[in-house]
Amino acid sequence: MAGSASASTRGGETREQILAAAERLFAERGVAAVSNRQVSEAAGQANNYAVGYHFGSKTELVLAVVRKHDQSVELRRAEAVAATRGSERVRDWVHCLVRPTIDYLAALEPPTWLARFLAQAMTEPSLRAPILAANDGSPTLREVRAALTRLLPMQPEEVRDERSAMARHLLVHMCAERERALHEGGETPRATWEATGTGLIDAITAVFLAPATPVPPRGRGPSDGSPRRRRAR
Amino acid sequence: MAGSASASTRGGETREQILAAAERLFAERGVAAVSNRQVSEAAGQANNYAVGYHFGSKTELVLAVVRKHDQSVELRRAEAVAATRGSERVRDWVHCLVRPTIDYLAALEPPTWLARFLAQAMTEPSLRAPILAANDGSPTLREVRAALTRLLPMQPEEVRDERSAMARHLLVHMCAERERALHEGGETPRATWEATGTGLIDAITAVFLAPATPVPPRGRGPSDGSPRRRRAR
Repeated sequence: MAGSASASTRGGETREQILAAAERLFAERGVAAVSNRQVSEAAGQANNYAVGYHFGSKTELVLAVVRKHDQSVELRRAEAVAATRGSERVRDWVHCLVRPTIDYLAALEPPTWLARFLAQAMTEPSLRAPILAANDGSPTLREVRAALTRLLPMQPEEVRDERSAMARHLLVHMCAERERALHEGGETPRATWEATGTGLIDAITAVFLAPATPVPPRGRGPSDGSPRRRRAR
Repeated sequence: MAGSASASTRGGETREQILAAAERLFAERGVAAVSNRQVSEAAGQANNYAVGYHFGSKTELVLAVVRKHDQSVELRRAEAVAATRGSERVRDWVHCLVRPTIDYLAALEPPTWLARFLAQAMTEPSLRAPILAANDGSPTLREVRAALTRLLPMQPEEVRDERSAMARHLLVHMCAERERALHEGGETPRATWEATGTGLIDAITAVFLAPATPVPPRGRGPSDGSPRRRRAR
């Protein structure tokens, strides 16, 4: 029994080593540019098929890295949402979108790779859908979205969808840019993660509250298409 | 002479074919994941060193793709800036940041690759600096930045830098996401490039105009760092 417990611990350690190597390599070079074999090697595995054995496909490996961090962010976000429930201020709900991620990044031992990893993973066509699906499954994110919809009742659905995407891009790419600058000794606009979070909350709140210019319907005015949501063409 | 003119025309055509293949492959797979050899093959070049012969390094190839489009965008932006000079409205100057790129994308024969190419190139650490340097060299972008600085005199430099970065991320990544959805038949929040541009102008104007929450100085309050611009650490 002791032998099997220790084997299972070793398996857990190998998994952790592979997750850490994958996060770093994908963050530095992009997901498509790194093979499972390179991840296995960087994780110190003599067996080049260690990734396949422990995770199956590369997509599964990427999602396992996402999940590893998501649990901690989700816990922080649950606390923020609990403290915000009942608030009618858009800014309070945007706080719930931004602070849990920022505080988690600030609490990790530097150098962190998570923000660059997420930016790379979201730029990879085959990974966007599963990562966004994982987001859709988050009960706290669903509560934030419902609150924003309730607080902005006049906003057309297409504008709300667009602004949710904008909030996501700002959070992911501003954090990735800051993380890279921290790692490479470059300049960052803000001195701290804390101040970076404040800047993001200011900006994303303004995006959600911005008046939406009506777009003229197709054939009337300068627009070149229908104002209704539709399949892209 | 006729022979040498025709050889130079052929050289020009080869260059164009390589640029088009590079833009598409980098857009689809990321810059790091594609070799010069793969670009040469996709461009129909029997000689695997065609990229090296015509462009030198991969960085030079990426910058050549950027320059190929930049000239047209720069012309459109020069017109927009000329029509905006004298305006005291932040929104008019944000229009000059957004519309030239959007109108250029809308005018290209679909499927376009440019927006995804730029999103990939900006995520590649070794390419960000040269691409941003090319931006810094644009006289029209410099005029827009100067106008925004003049119209927002109370804004701390760190906040202005941060918001310029946010405007860039929103433009690049919202266009890349839309371009990908158009290509793959996915859903887009907006029906047209025209409406996408309007949404971006609404949002980026709000970001520049948003009140900036003061960040408390280091050691006083919840901030964990100095409020002054500094080298990242």
